Amino acid sequence: MRLFQSGPMPDKRLTLAHGNGGRLTRELIETIFAPAFNNPDLDTQSDAARFLLTGASMMTTDCYTVDPLFFPGGDIGKLAVCGTVNDLSVSGAVPRYMSVNFLLEEGLEFSVLESVVTSMAEEARSNAVSIITGDTKVLPKGMVEGMYIVTTGIGSQICADISISNICSGDNIFVSGSVGDHGAAVFLARAKYGLQGSLQSDCASISVLAAQLMGIPGLKFMRDPTRGGLATVCHEIIRSCKLGVRLVESVIPLKPEVQAYCDILGLNPYYLASEGRIVFVVDDQVSIDDICGISDDIHCIGKIEEGHGNLVLQTDIGGTRIIPELDSDPLPRIC
Amino acid sequence: MRLFQSGPMPDKRLTLAHGNGGRLTRELIETIFAPAFNNPDLDTQSDAARFLLTGASMMTTDCYTVDPLFFPGGDIGKLAVCGTVNDLSVSGAVPRYMSVNFLLEEGLEFSVLESVVTSMAEEARSNAVSIITGDTKVLPKGMVEGMYIVTTGIGSQICADISISNICSGDNIFVSGSVGDHGAAVFLARAKYGLQGSLQSDCASISVLAAQLMGIPGLKFMRDPTRGGLATVCHEIIRSCKLGVRLVESVIPLKPEVQAYCDILGLNPYYLASEGRIVFVVDDQVSIDDICGISDDIHCIGKIEEGHGNLVLQTDIGGTRIIPELDSDPLPRIC
Repeated sequence: MRLFQSGPMPDKRLTLAHGNGGRLTRELIETIFAPAFNNPDLDTQSDAARFLLTGASMMTTDCYTVDPLFFPGGDIGKLAVCGTVNDLSVSGAVPRYMSVNFLLEEGLEFSVLESVVTSMAEEARSNAVSIITGDTKVLPKGMVEGMYIVTTGIGSQICADISISNICSGDNIFVSGSVGDHGAAVFLARAKYGLQGSLQSDCASISVLAAQLMGIPGLKFMRDPTRGGLATVCHEIIRSCKLGVRLVESVIPLKPEVQAYCDILGLNPYYLASEGRIVFVVDDQVSIDDICGISDDIHCIGKIEEGHGNLVLQTDIGGTRIIPELDSDPLPRIC
Repeated sequence: MRLFQSGPMPDKRLTLAHGNGGRLTRELIETIFAPAFNNPDLDTQSDAARFLLTGASMMTTDCYTVDPLFFPGGDIGKLAVCGTVNDLSVSGAVPRYMSVNFLLEEGLEFSVLESVVTSMAEEARSNAVSIITGDTKVLPKGMVEGMYIVTTGIGSQICADISISNICSGDNIFVSGSVGDHGAAVFLARAKYGLQGSLQSDCASISVLAAQLMGIPGLKFMRDPTRGGLATVCHEIIRSCKLGVRLVESVIPLKPEVQAYCDILGLNPYYLASEGRIVFVVDDQVSIDDICGISDDIHCIGKIEEGHGNLVLQTDIGGTRIIPELDSDPLPRIC
């Protein structure tokens, strides 16, 4: 019989009772959620929290199931807050309030939850977003993989002129940095594939840049190229506006590592998710140089064309290639 | 080789590609979500939807993981809409807008999803709530059990005087119908226990009743006794107000079937979830008869007492019994 255990204490783990609404749920709120998300609008006593938004507002929601929970450049918590902040930002709104749902697996280590919650709280604070209400479910082992998070954000609309329906032939398309970093970094982080590298996810808030872009008079449309990547944003434009899109391969910013992983795995990098970029469309009367002057990393990558209904890539070797709408899923659980 | 298949066509099933943001995600939105949730505020083209709320507002969110997805008296879709409508209603708000997240298991039948979505749409419509935005994730088989749903609701605050902190010694506690029906009905619906009966869940919107109760001048607090049941609402009062609660067993409405199942399984019915009831607290200056006159099914079930910190049940046989805060989970995945 060993009286003293050597090595670190075993980590405390979540039980089903942490999600039953009773004593342990309360303790979870009191010890982890309330201290981290502390803000004047947080209400842990009621079933609903009070907020105040005047004028036209926007609402968005997203579910995050990324595997693994921690990846180079971020974790599921940072991703969940940035994702919702970014969806509001590219829709012309200033993010203000957020709700959070945790779906947790029985047996998950407290330290993992704490780390994710800390990351969410920091990201919310740096975006001046108040997490005001939430819900936690603990599911029997095997019915969630680790943790899924849902964030729902609301904010004030400050720019009502952004709409996919404004886009017309001749407009220029821009991107605010290299594409596909997040998708490739998460994929790399899956140890089972045995790949290694220094690539980081681009996971970040783009709210400041979005606000700057709203100052461009001819701005027509912004979208963050997450699930389905740059190609999917282009196809949304094509379908919605009954137009065509032409991208120029040589000017689309792509990290060599991302290109290399795509080559190894037979993936198209334009389908890979970014989590800190904006794809945007501007009237061609606005000088491309002026727009690219806003930041070092803004690139004009193509044009909207008359309605041929295709995404055409002008390749480096001088030809053209059609990139179809994404069909089968190359990388599930990337966000 | 059989050219013609006899019997019904095999049901179409969800694939991972239905959640990748590409063609099949779009088709899922176009064929199932958009037609069902059709309303002027629904925005399936943008990452965020526009809404307008003036003055003080409320926000709530909840995750639904009920097992099984369909149970006598409702399904996960009705439950998800009612739950969020009810959380806003008991917080003194009129529900107006909602977002919906679906976490779906690869292989789920389309017919199951369609049935749940139809049920959500009907319940939202009958509550004058617009589902304006949403998100869908399809997870690899085994990483979700069938379907989980998150609903986030926002609405206008119409009664700012409801707060747990208003409660004081002497106040009366009421409930708007029998307790524990939902918990027992869901439990019964789990075929693995081999129990049968005619019990239905009480799953329903309580927004109309909540609005009526807000007309009572001495109304102090309302809560829907979902996860953790009546006992958990009482313990929230006890902890928050540093008071005691005395319930009278003989006057707490309880269906004989619910009592019978609890007896068989050794469960306390006051921990079982209701999904269409309100527990509320009123100043003792207001006539109990007047309050019970609002509906046939309102019952005064006890009183708030000086600060002994316990939930005391005055039993049918003349004694008293302490009901502790819920600890281990008797029935996971009830809502």
